[in-house]
This record gives sequence, C-alpha cells and structure tokens, in this order.
Amino acid sequence: MYECLLHETTFTRLEERLKPFSEQLAPVTVNDDLEIGHPWGETKDGALISYGNTDVWFSPAAKAFAKYLHSAGRLAWFQSSAAGLENPFLQKIGDKAEAYTSSHVQSEAIAEWVLWAGFDWFGNGAGRRAAQAEKDWRSVSFREIQATRWLIYGFGHIGEAVGRRLRGLGAHVTGVRRSGHVSPFADRIIHPQNFEPDNLGQSDAVLLCCPHTPETENLADADFFTAMKEDSLFMNVGRGALVDETALIAALEARRPAHATLDVTREEPLPEDSPLWRHPHLTLTPHTSAMTEDALKRNDELFLENLVLFLNGEPLRNLVEDSAFAAQSV
Amino acid sequence: MYECLLHETTFTRLEERLKPFSEQLAPVTVNDDLEIGHPWGETKDGALISYGNTDVWFSPAAKAFAKYLHSAGRLAWFQSSAAGLENPFLQKIGDKAEAYTSSHVQSEAIAEWVLWAGFDWFGNGAGRRAAQAEKDWRSVSFREIQATRWLIYGFGHIGEAVGRRLRGLGAHVTGVRRSGHVSPFADRIIHPQNFEPDNLGQSDAVLLCCPHTPETENLADADFFTAMKEDSLFMNVGRGALVDETALIAALEARRPAHATLDVTREEPLPEDSPLWRHPHLTLTPHTSAMTEDALKRNDELFLENLVLFLNGEPLRNLVEDSAFAAQSV
Repeated sequence: MYECLLHETTFTRLEERLKPFSEQLAPVTVNDDLEIGHPWGETKDGALISYGNTDVWFSPAAKAFAKYLHSAGRLAWFQSSAAGLENPFLQKIGDKAEAYTSSHVQSEAIAEWVLWAGFDWFGNGAGRRAAQAEKDWRSVSFREIQATRWLIYGFGHIGEAVGRRLRGLGAHVTGVRRSGHVSPFADRIIHPQNFEPDNLGQSDAVLLCCPHTPETENLADADFFTAMKEDSLFMNVGRGALVDETALIAALEARRPAHATLDVTREEPLPEDSPLWRHPHLTLTPHTSAMTEDALKRNDELFLENLVLFLNGEPLRNLVEDSAFAAQSV
Repeated sequence: MYECLLHETTFTRLEERLKPFSEQLAPVTVNDDLEIGHPWGETKDGALISYGNTDVWFSPAAKAFAKYLHSAGRLAWFQSSAAGLENPFLQKIGDKAEAYTSSHVQSEAIAEWVLWAGFDWFGNGAGRRAAQAEKDWRSVSFREIQATRWLIYGFGHIGEAVGRRLRGLGAHVTGVRRSGHVSPFADRIIHPQNFEPDNLGQSDAVLLCCPHTPETENLADADFFTAMKEDSLFMNVGRGALVDETALIAALEARRPAHATLDVTREEPLPEDSPLWRHPHLTLTPHTSAMTEDALKRNDELFLENLVLFLNGEPLRNLVEDSAFAAQSV
C-alpha cells in the first residue's frame, strides 16, 4: 500500500482512472485551503509516492504539499510535471525521492508561447494595438516570420519543439547544443564551443531554452547583447540566471536587442520594484509558458503511465539519475 | 514606347532593374508631395502601363496617381499588388485597362497576420499584458493552437497559405470553397452549399477570406455568430461587407464569438465614432494584413516578370478576365 500525494484538483480529475489501483493506493490530497484529505481512507504502513504539477505549484497549497512530502518516512517515487531540475525545491525532492521522474510534455506549450512572442514582435502587435487605441487608420507594417533567422540556444525537447514549428513556417533555424547531433528541426547545429558573436549578429530572434548550469550562468551578458542584430528579439524560457538583467536593460536602451520577451526572471516572483515590469521594450510573463490545459492533461497521462510501471516494478519513463541533479548541461 | 506610371518610391527601388528596358519605357512617377516626375524624360506617343502597389495606396499620392491613370488615352496594362477585384476603384481601373493582372503574393503576409491573431487570442496575450501592467505574478493560462479546430471560409490562395501553416502547427483545418477540390492544406473541404451551423459550432477559430459577392454579403450575420462556439475567435481578412457589424457587436456582448480580430471593416477608413475601435473584445488592424516589406518585394518581382512578358507580347501571369470583375465567387 502506498500513500499517493496529489493536489485535490488533480485527484478529482483522475479519481475514476485511479480506482483500478484502489488496493494499492491511499490517495492523500491537499487543497487551496491547506486541508489534507484522505478520500479513500488512511493507511499507516507503506511509503509515499507523489505527483507534483501546476495544480500545486501555482496554488496556495504548494507549501503544505511540500511539507507533507518531506515529513514522509520514505518517498518512493516522485513524478514532476517539469523538465528542469535545478530549482532548489525540486533538488530537495530529488534528494529524498528513491525514484524521480521528470516530464518534457510542457515543451509543446512552451513552443507555442515562443511563437506567440515571435508573432507579436515581428507582427508588430504593439504598433497595431497603439494604432487601434488612437483610433488611427494608419499604415502599420510588419515582418514575416518566414523571412527570419532564429538562434535557439539549448536544442533539447523545447528547442526542437520550437524548431519544428519555425521550420514549418519557413524560418531559418540554428540550434546550439552540446551533443552536436544534427536535428530535422534545425537548418544548422552548432556546438557551444563553436558559438560566436557572428551567430548572434545573423539572427533576427534569439531564444534561450537551455538549463541553468555554471557554464550557462549569465550566458546573455553585455557582450552577448552587443553582438545581437538591430531590430532583433531576445527571448528566455530557460531560467532567469541565464541573463544578466542589468546588461539586458542597458541593451534594450541601445535597442540591441530591440525587444525582449521573458518568461523567467532571476528572482521569482519578480519583486514589485523591478524595472523589468514596466520596461517599454520588454514583455514579461510570470513563468507560465507551459501553463496550458493540454500540458496538464499530457502530464496526467505520463503520471498514469508511470504509475502502472511503478506498481508493476518496471522501469519508469523519464527516470532522472541522481547525478543529473548535480551536473546539467546544454 | 510606353509611359510607365509608378510611385516614386517604387521607381527608386526598381530603377536599376528597369534600365535594360529604357528604350521601351518612359517612367512617370508620383510622390507624396503629389509631384509628377519624368526621370528619363517625357514621351508623347504610346500608351500607359502602370504598377499600383502599397507605396501608392497607403500614401497621399493615391489620388494623383489615379488621376494620371484615368487621364491617359490608353491604359495598355495595369499590374495590381492585390488579389481583390471588387473595390470600385480597382473596378474602374479594370474597366479602362486593356490588360489587368492581379497578385496573390500577399497571401503569405496575410497568413502571418492570421497566425498573429490566432496566437494572441489562444495564447492569452491580453491576459499576459494585463498581468504585466498590474505587476502581478499571477498564473495566466492559455490554449495551444495545436489543439484547435479552424474553419476557413474561402479556401483560395490566402486560405491555403493559412491552412498550410496551421496544419504544420498541428491544428485541424476545414476549408470552405466552391470548387470543392481537396487540398493538402485542409483536413476537410466543404462546399458552401453543404456549409451548416454545426461547422461553426465545432470550430475554435473561424476565418473569413473569401471575396465579397452578392452571395457572401453579410455572410457573418446574427445566425452565423449564434452558431459559433464558446471561447471562439472570429477573424476577417476578406472584406468588411462580409460581416454584419451590428450583429457582430451584439455577438461579442454574448461572447459568441468571445473575440473578433478584423483587418477589414465595412467603411474604410473606419469612422472615428465607430464602436469597433474601442470594443474590449475586438482587435482591429487598418487593412494592413498584407503590409510587409517581403510582400512588397514579391510584388516587385511579379511586376518585373510581367513587364518582360508584356514587352515581348507574351501572355501575362495572373491576367484577370473582364468577366471576373463582374462575377466573383468563393
């Protein structure tokens, strides 16, 4: 018998599909009023398993959920809805969990966020909205994505999901990744060691979607921005620590890049007094580039699939090696 | 010898490429100060040919350009940068011109406009901008285009350019067209006669990109909108007369569709007192969905290609039959 910790919203959504396992599972729920529930009764023996997703992390329940997790005698398996591992909170879960599985299903949602950011910049969304607000039937020109060149730094699941869409739209895609392996979703792959300012200078859009490691800390610094092209767009869906935010603000004043669209910041939630909130050349979303119902559902499917494997003692999908928490790379 | 009427901006851009034809052409330019120029000298004999593009139509020169066009003894050939024919202004040129050629190269730009509109609605751009304006690090969810179903009414050049992109992004595409011919860019094609409310009720996004004809006048009326799905997006890049704007405003109040994004309106420029300008559920662009540098360049290429054909007495590309001005269809 395993206790299975879930957000109450997740449990309600999955209850019917969990019933076949009622002999092996005792669900434990946390809701936004911080109430702990035992919808199928309590169990005293057995280890804990848990599925942590956006129902939890973007709710008041997050702390109570974590507290329950860490008070358990044994955490036999934790299914994360995220790909990233370097968050201290997830690191701590990773330390405790006997098995930790990650998820890459958010890549598709994140790729859609990137296209939204790209179309709004190249499509001159801001100019269009300004003309409408001024009731001005003026000519508002824009650029076609199909004529743009993109540099995607970090060409894993997210990078490939973005590259696949962009190439379908006719854009030119250069991916940077350590494996150096070619990809059907990039016109060109560069190894980080061969990455040079010219690669930035030729790109209309630059996207960071690599993990945060000692090598990628402050990857986008003053020199990086200086090497960028005029009228270019900078985007970050990786981690805030990839960007020197002071350098970014100076760079935006110089309009290289001309605009930045960020889903992550160095400090999250972003403090109210941060100049990033209201910078005229910066669009900001609160680490929600993966926040779709569709991603939530795909994660549910992954959890259920891994649940069957776990209960049968079979190898889990997306099992994260202990070492991966320590050493991460592009 | 032909006089060749162009906007001065167009002439400057193309001068080098026109030089090989200097024995046969006497360019006549109009600029935004309404000055008529004869950069290579005047000619007294010969008919007029002309290339009318967005350099002209979105500038103060439009009227002077048209006046010159209509005062010519013979208008031997007119190259339009647009696909549409029902504009009274173009109709009048069509009546006068011995040969009239249209252009479909704007389809690509218009398709990019449609994706911008789609990503901004499904990506919850308005919600994201509001959260940023309020400095609120709140969860802003959105929908993935790849999980949406689109209905494209009018599946010609523009419809196909949109459908191709959407299918590449994983969306489901239904096209409505009179030919009924299947298309690699649609999952399904419907003949207008078989079009029914259910087709609207199943669509997350509905795009009008058919011509304005007696059959399509007020195509999108109260019944049309009532049949639409909750949370759906309505778009029009065809002509304003396709839409009953009073019915649209009532429909937006009822949130069916939940949002409309229009590039065309019944009266253009839209009068300042129109309620469309400031409706909270409506995004409006001033008939500029084709306004890209790339489309301008593609039109230049088409003009130059047709110029060679014209001077050699060969059949022109995109020649419009006289009858097409009168009878148009989806």
